[in-house]
Amino acid sequence: MVTRKLNVGLLGCGTVGRGLVELVARNHTLIRQRTGVELAITRILVRDAGKERPGVERNLLTTHPEKVIDNGCDLVVELIGGIEPARALIQRSLARSKHVVTANKALLALDGFSIMKAAEIQKVRLGFEASVCGGIPIIRALRNGLVGNQIHSLRGILNGTCNYILTRMTEDRVDFNDALAEAQAKGFAEADPTLDIDGHDAAQKLKILAELAFHAHVPAQAVLVEGIRHITADDIQAARELGYVIKHIAAAECSGDCMSLQVHPVLLPGKHQLAGIRDENNAVLVRGDAVGEMVFSGKGAGSLPSASAVLSDVVDIACHQGGFSASQGKVLDTHAPDDHGKHYLRFPVDDPSAIAAITTVLERNGIGIARAAAVWAKSASAQNQVRVLTQDCLRSTVETSLRDISASGVEKGQGIALRVMD
Amino acid sequence: MVTRKLNVGLLGCGTVGRGLVELVARNHTLIRQRTGVELAITRILVRDAGKERPGVERNLLTTHPEKVIDNGCDLVVELIGGIEPARALIQRSLARSKHVVTANKALLALDGFSIMKAAEIQKVRLGFEASVCGGIPIIRALRNGLVGNQIHSLRGILNGTCNYILTRMTEDRVDFNDALAEAQAKGFAEADPTLDIDGHDAAQKLKILAELAFHAHVPAQAVLVEGIRHITADDIQAARELGYVIKHIAAAECSGDCMSLQVHPVLLPGKHQLAGIRDENNAVLVRGDAVGEMVFSGKGAGSLPSASAVLSDVVDIACHQGGFSASQGKVLDTHAPDDHGKHYLRFPVDDPSAIAAITTVLERNGIGIARAAAVWAKSASAQNQVRVLTQDCLRSTVETSLRDISASGVEKGQGIALRVMD
Repeated sequence: MVTRKLNVGLLGCGTVGRGLVELVARNHTLIRQRTGVELAITRILVRDAGKERPGVERNLLTTHPEKVIDNGCDLVVELIGGIEPARALIQRSLARSKHVVTANKALLALDGFSIMKAAEIQKVRLGFEASVCGGIPIIRALRNGLVGNQIHSLRGILNGTCNYILTRMTEDRVDFNDALAEAQAKGFAEADPTLDIDGHDAAQKLKILAELAFHAHVPAQAVLVEGIRHITADDIQAARELGYVIKHIAAAECSGDCMSLQVHPVLLPGKHQLAGIRDENNAVLVRGDAVGEMVFSGKGAGSLPSASAVLSDVVDIACHQGGFSASQGKVLDTHAPDDHGKHYLRFPVDDPSAIAAITTVLERNGIGIARAAAVWAKSASAQNQVRVLTQDCLRSTVETSLRDISASGVEKGQGIALRVMD
Repeated sequence: MVTRKLNVGLLGCGTVGRGLVELVARNHTLIRQRTGVELAITRILVRDAGKERPGVERNLLTTHPEKVIDNGCDLVVELIGGIEPARALIQRSLARSKHVVTANKALLALDGFSIMKAAEIQKVRLGFEASVCGGIPIIRALRNGLVGNQIHSLRGILNGTCNYILTRMTEDRVDFNDALAEAQAKGFAEADPTLDIDGHDAAQKLKILAELAFHAHVPAQAVLVEGIRHITADDIQAARELGYVIKHIAAAECSGDCMSLQVHPVLLPGKHQLAGIRDENNAVLVRGDAVGEMVFSGKGAGSLPSASAVLSDVVDIACHQGGFSASQGKVLDTHAPDDHGKHYLRFPVDDPSAIAAITTVLERNGIGIARAAAVWAKSASAQNQVRVLTQDCLRSTVETSLRDISASGVEKGQGIALRVMD
């Protein structure tokens, strides 16, 4: 494969910026092997070049934006956030025919179309996978993976802080304020959590997703926004008694030439696909005319997940500048999987009191028993059985034990052993 | 946006082929608006040109492969399946510098590397999103979205028939044979279901995913395969009593220079992210060093989901042949979302016997009551409350009723109304 070098100029070196520097350092060889793209971060714009940044080479730092944008870079990554100076620097980069990758949801929600238009005019590409749901490739799914679908609706858990708070309130039965304090202590929630818990962060993300999904402009005021401050532990308990969980859902629907967008706490049936999304995780349920319902879930924020999304855009742009890449296999060893773990064993027997003989064999072979049951058949067509849930043990020992038990003659047929996966 | 025409030659017109023809006919305008790509299927290879194919133009059909491959097409879609003649036709297409999109998992599992290599040498692209998990963009996620990650493991529910059978056995407590017969009656399972229920279909898919994820060659014999024929309804019930569900899981792990691959029925904890994947749905849980755990789920097979995946590859290749595309918004109306539905209402009150006054207001306004409760506070700091779960009703009527109840003076604070989403 031909290797192409891609010089990346980085604007901003906060949480996600440092994550990007770390991930490029860690995985650039892997990326070159997979794609033929050799990435190099050539300059980094910071406000204070003197600040300590572990893992970041100090001689890459500059406080002059033009040194990043003009320094022979092929692509500019904007991770400053907020409206200005991010917007001006992106526009300047586009005007100089640099590809741009950004994680800036506030800017895209405010002014996405004019930035996309500027990129189109300059015939450069704009990547913004990291602007919504961190490492989950939902932008890519809407732009590419589902491009042949009419998207009828989106429903998402788009704010990790709200989901963390509601999960704690649900599972630990704590109050909103305690759950918020915990989220802040764990670093999910900002010191000023207003944007998160009042729903505005989710509304910005929903606007970006809906514009892609429905291929339409969404006025910001079209999104109805309700936060979660007024939800109590009692509400959650009352919902549970009715078979529901309370989740903060961002929902967009499109039907004909009409759409509706709303961010609000709702009651979801316990079996709903979004009901099981816990803690700070994000998820998006997309309904398309061809694919039906599809769910994407994972970590929606954080340094490395967001850096992963930035990197996917950078590599994507690099790959489509020129050559093509094919997967070339290295040679790995293979080994027998899962050589130990808990197991579920079932033995058909004439007499369930064979449980004594069976568990004796297992114990002799060093297999700890978590549960064991002698089961009499309830009907003539069913079999008497012995069932065992083991402690953690070697798979090979389980197989030896199955053979030993078979040889002992207490079985009436073939026993089975299924692995338990945690 | 500049419009580019892309002529597509189609090899095979079975379930997925007809789905592709239908989806292109239905959504080609939308695709052109989104991407600037104008798709046209110019020729279709079939075995019997006389057979009735509703929705397929008869004058596109031919029984001569060279008429498809050589007929001025830019890209060849292979949907014949199996090894030959699919392999020879793909090789012939690549040799003539046509891009190729295929859904052929058996061929890719057998010979994927030599086909990728041939595409690379010819500097054309090979798309195979539809080969694994139908409409779920998991190939794209591994090739692009997660390109910056070391992938540590994959765990998937990759065969819809097995998952359907296990779901029926779990939820309806039927036996394996009855569940299989139901899957066949519904068209999920083949007349000869061996490849599905013995795990070989899932093993082919796992091999394709693992080769992408670990960027390594996986020998077919490295995948240990166990099917689900030997699982009984009793096993599932016994697992449930222990807090587990039984799922047919395809698992691949990579650590250092060593990997393990296995397809087998396992016990998953009831709260596991794959435990809730029901019926014929597929899902893949990917663990990467940057993104952590991520789950993709949806319909893993079927005419339109698979056609959606084929189309995503076709459009992707077309977009990267030349120009760039930016989203251009049409103007849609917006309307207030969810104007009716069930609601959960909560009113803080001095005296819970206010339930009479509150439900009277609701009934007068035409809101049916599903459940209502007068709740006395359990502690001095808590509030007495009235809680109501309504029948389906207009949101505006709920808001009117909240105002009426507030005006009546029975409340001690502000009531809330949360929507119930089904």
